[in-house]
Amino acid sequence: MSRWEPNARGRLETAALELFRENGFDSTTVTEIAARAGLTERTFFRHFADKREVLFGGSQLVRDLLISKVGAAPAHATPWAAVVYALEEIAAEVFEPRRPLVLQRQVVVDANPELRERELIKSATFAAAIADALRDRGVADTAAELAGQAGIAVLHTAFGRWTRQDGDRELSRFIGETADEMHTLTARESPTGRR
Amino acid sequence: MSRWEPNARGRLETAALELFRENGFDSTTVTEIAARAGLTERTFFRHFADKREVLFGGSQLVRDLLISKVGAAPAHATPWAAVVYALEEIAAEVFEPRRPLVLQRQVVVDANPELRERELIKSATFAAAIADALRDRGVADTAAELAGQAGIAVLHTAFGRWTRQDGDRELSRFIGETADEMHTLTARESPTGRR
Repeated sequence: MSRWEPNARGRLETAALELFRENGFDSTTVTEIAARAGLTERTFFRHFADKREVLFGGSQLVRDLLISKVGAAPAHATPWAAVVYALEEIAAEVFEPRRPLVLQRQVVVDANPELRERELIKSATFAAAIADALRDRGVADTAAELAGQAGIAVLHTAFGRWTRQDGDRELSRFIGETADEMHTLTARESPTGRR
Repeated sequence: MSRWEPNARGRLETAALELFRENGFDSTTVTEIAARAGLTERTFFRHFADKREVLFGGSQLVRDLLISKVGAAPAHATPWAAVVYALEEIAAEVFEPRRPLVLQRQVVVDANPELRERELIKSATFAAAIADALRDRGVADTAAELAGQAGIAVLHTAFGRWTRQDGDRELSRFIGETADEMHTLTARESPTGRR
């Protein structure tokens, strides 16, 4: 078998997600993943440190993108507009083009308590990345922290709406709507002025 | 030694937090905690399943209180007003009277990656509890989820402000302010109408 395997990483990812869904994450071995993909274990370990990294290997990319996109928002944007811009951009660039794999991955993560915990930790690092990028834009320390956590709450809820929809609306549209909902929902007074 | 030890739970908690801070969480044993408190290991295990439960044993109480307090908010309250009411009540009833222990606990948790992960998971269960209670108030499914996560973001940020302050303002006041900040901060347009 040659060292060069066309799209080895994508084939391994597809094979792993299939097996995780069929047999569960815990019961699946790297040997099985490599065999399903028609590749060697050696090739697997050239792309992933372990089977969990198939699910979480993209986190660093998203984290880096969050920082660069928040920084790239127009200078006059409010902090929240910068956060929403970054999330919409990442939705369009990272999540939407990979929708089937993204949905399969979520089913696998949701089915496993340990993976759900890992997902929470990932989300916390995303919130911290947004907060860091906002601080670089001059946003006060704790306001940046608050906006980072609000941003991840929006991403999480919008993502759920996107995955559960019957139609084919883009994730970025769910993000924009959910972000505006976060603002209206966090009013202590109702529109008529009563608390 | 008699079976009845006055305030055994409180003495064990104080002893454990002292030792966790002096020697680190991982290096501290139940034997040492019991000895420091002047109690037996047997007494320790009547109160806590393990040393980690000294730090996380109150989670169920807070979770239950979140649900009952959100439910107890006035019928005409907006979802966000109900969340803020619940957080303020819990701040006054649970956190403020135990301020020194609460602050010591946070130092211990922040110093240990595994405990920080456990804290994230605890926060996620709090967000889910708020969301459940809001659904019981008739709030739509994903709006309730969003408000639950926003509520925990506010609690987290307000808690940090409370612990770091030089003065002695109540946690409940930081919660009210931070909750209002969440609303103003999540505006996509600035007050002058520019994005």
